[in-house]
Amino acid sequence: MTRIVGVDIEDVRFPTSLTADGSDAMNKDGDYSAAYVVLRTDGQGPDGDPLAGHGLTFTIGRGNDIVAAAAREQAAQLVGRDVADVVGDLGGVYRDLTADSQIRWLGPEKGVVHLSLSAVMNAVWDLAARAAGKPLWRLLADLSPEELVDVADLRYLSDALTRDEAIAILRAQEAGKAERIAELERTGYPCYTTSAGWLGYSDEKLRRLCQEAIDDGYNHIKLKVGANLEDDIRRCSIAREVIGPDRTLMIDANQVWDVPQAIEWTNALAQFDLLWIEEPTSPDDILGHAAIKRGVAPIGVATGEHAHNRVMFKQFMQAGAMDFCQLDTGRLGSLNEIIAVLLLAAKFEVPVCPHAGGVGLCEMVQHVSMLDFVAVSGTHEGRVTEFVDHLHEHFTDPCTVSGAAYRVPTQPGYSTQMHESSIAEFRFPDGSYWAGRLAETSA
Amino acid sequence: MTRIVGVDIEDVRFPTSLTADGSDAMNKDGDYSAAYVVLRTDGQGPDGDPLAGHGLTFTIGRGNDIVAAAAREQAAQLVGRDVADVVGDLGGVYRDLTADSQIRWLGPEKGVVHLSLSAVMNAVWDLAARAAGKPLWRLLADLSPEELVDVADLRYLSDALTRDEAIAILRAQEAGKAERIAELERTGYPCYTTSAGWLGYSDEKLRRLCQEAIDDGYNHIKLKVGANLEDDIRRCSIAREVIGPDRTLMIDANQVWDVPQAIEWTNALAQFDLLWIEEPTSPDDILGHAAIKRGVAPIGVATGEHAHNRVMFKQFMQAGAMDFCQLDTGRLGSLNEIIAVLLLAAKFEVPVCPHAGGVGLCEMVQHVSMLDFVAVSGTHEGRVTEFVDHLHEHFTDPCTVSGAAYRVPTQPGYSTQMHESSIAEFRFPDGSYWAGRLAETSA
Repeated sequence: MTRIVGVDIEDVRFPTSLTADGSDAMNKDGDYSAAYVVLRTDGQGPDGDPLAGHGLTFTIGRGNDIVAAAAREQAAQLVGRDVADVVGDLGGVYRDLTADSQIRWLGPEKGVVHLSLSAVMNAVWDLAARAAGKPLWRLLADLSPEELVDVADLRYLSDALTRDEAIAILRAQEAGKAERIAELERTGYPCYTTSAGWLGYSDEKLRRLCQEAIDDGYNHIKLKVGANLEDDIRRCSIAREVIGPDRTLMIDANQVWDVPQAIEWTNALAQFDLLWIEEPTSPDDILGHAAIKRGVAPIGVATGEHAHNRVMFKQFMQAGAMDFCQLDTGRLGSLNEIIAVLLLAAKFEVPVCPHAGGVGLCEMVQHVSMLDFVAVSGTHEGRVTEFVDHLHEHFTDPCTVSGAAYRVPTQPGYSTQMHESSIAEFRFPDGSYWAGRLAETSA
Repeated sequence: MTRIVGVDIEDVRFPTSLTADGSDAMNKDGDYSAAYVVLRTDGQGPDGDPLAGHGLTFTIGRGNDIVAAAAREQAAQLVGRDVADVVGDLGGVYRDLTADSQIRWLGPEKGVVHLSLSAVMNAVWDLAARAAGKPLWRLLADLSPEELVDVADLRYLSDALTRDEAIAILRAQEAGKAERIAELERTGYPCYTTSAGWLGYSDEKLRRLCQEAIDDGYNHIKLKVGANLEDDIRRCSIAREVIGPDRTLMIDANQVWDVPQAIEWTNALAQFDLLWIEEPTSPDDILGHAAIKRGVAPIGVATGEHAHNRVMFKQFMQAGAMDFCQLDTGRLGSLNEIIAVLLLAAKFEVPVCPHAGGVGLCEMVQHVSMLDFVAVSGTHEGRVTEFVDHLHEHFTDPCTVSGAAYRVPTQPGYSTQMHESSIAEFRFPDGSYWAGRLAETSA
């Protein structure tokens, strides 16, 4: 019997605020960070290496220790458990962790304890895929409709999606699975880049990065907006000029507007032929997004990176408030909740275009989009997954993007293992980078 | 100049799980807890005592340390600030704390970092009231409409409530303020009790407590339901038999149902003539509550104790999903957000019946309901505030209830100061109670 014998939780922070990478109208100086969970076992994987599960959630700096503390509380429940039991009942493990009523009170199912749940369950899913010797997308694609629905959290969804409907959605895609897997292995999954458009970049840098994106084969470019309308007009104009009339431009306001202002500002940028306005207002405002959608059509409304659980996604879809579903792999309760959202999206015919960037999110979303394509929606028509070319060098199995597509991950797991050297350098506050910088600051 | 010179954060837990006080269908074994914040100054209040602000938020046990850690991060910003500046710009202080983008990411405006914001801002408001030498409800009631709106957080609300509308709502109540204050001082603010109806109590205890509630003058009784329908029918039947046909019965399911089940179960209890079903499903499910409301009318739907911010309340009201607004003083961002919700409720004509119980919530809600009566809605018609008779002995200025009404607090502040002896006994894990119990457990 192989057991989970220990948990390591690390607070890892990268000093991205120094270069304005990731700057937007709400978040001007984030240090991209990961609350990182390692589930250690006393066994070996199919490859003979020590078996462990690695998971993370993404934050932007201070407070990453608070998420780590919550993850420590939740992951402690897993120590001593039989790995075969855990990976054989991934729905049950998730339910055990979410049924802890004292911790649940601190959400429920939102905020710090849901971010930390994500990190812990991401490590459990990585462990499951490594134990099976498969990349996670493939482990999931190989499950039967019933098995996939059994691990999905459908609580509170039955007014929009019953278990029977969920199974029917998956059954309908059974036939073409093998062809779609072959297609994925050939062409990858389409992505777009945000790397060009951070708010803190100069016009010159914006122009150069847009050109580089085109040269790399991208057909979609996304710009951050919302701080100053004149600047936005100038920046959109530069981007449109560089990418030409046939490629696609999206904008992202990172929640800075009230509803009436969102409509007015977005319409003032409509001249640049926009596919979507992303996060125009509070991420909790389902009815507000519905009003914005009506007010800015035919520009679509994209949101979801801060939508904190499946109940929010259910309502965004019921209200017709979401044209593009940008679920986040560090904010939802791992695959258990993500599968539920993919099923809702399939039922409501909303294209899923996951949020990524930060640290580790790209590594995870590729698995989610591939699962969606192979087993849930069965298409990538009208879908494009975010890609930001930052911080991949810290992972042992980084995502590979070429020709504006994520290439299928082939190593076992969820691609979320960090190099030990990266942790040793960027662990806060005692990693070598931070120890040095903090010493300078206090000197 | 008086300055804030230090912050003490305490993790205080009361062992309520031992007696099943507070047990419901979702939360079977809570240890009522407070993340407790003291803002120390180097000055004196009008009474000559050292001036400090005391605030708390409520949790149910494990994880209270996580909220305390978040409060420590947020409150650190206040150290060194001039008390006159802080209490002279309570809107600005709130905005500073909520604009901290790295911490905001962990919500935003929800979960642990919003619970902790509540504790910190509750301490700031207590400080402001003590500096003014007034109980908080009275400090608020004495503000002008413009001053009250200036401290309210109206961000993301302008599609439902503009600043001008907010001022107009308050202006309309200016005339009768003095009479309403006099009425409050005479009769107090009406309340109901949940003390009788916890799920873990025996039928005999339920019967006895219902009778005692009547004897104490209560006209409203609330029962916890949702674990077992037969039990609920028997318990409702006992309660209705004891209180007779003319008093009011409410039920509370603490989020256990999906939407269709909520409608079915509530209608199965309709024979007991219920005023409201409280928290029938996920607290995030605005559209679900609207469907339940349509499905169980004329029984009303009450919710809000877990509604995490003003944007959720806005939508509950826009969707007509909330018959009774049960805002929570430990979950919303203190008075800055509560005032916004009171204004929304006045605009949408939804009666505010705040959630209380736990530890310290009763001490706070009395101030909120009195503010609502004096300055915002101008009435307590159809309104009744929760009261649970637990743990008041730990406060230096505990709420006083008689004749089923909260009596006006008369001491300066927000009534949230705990006895030092209570903290010394129940601080986790090193207070005398816990040190003893943990020693026993490990022996």
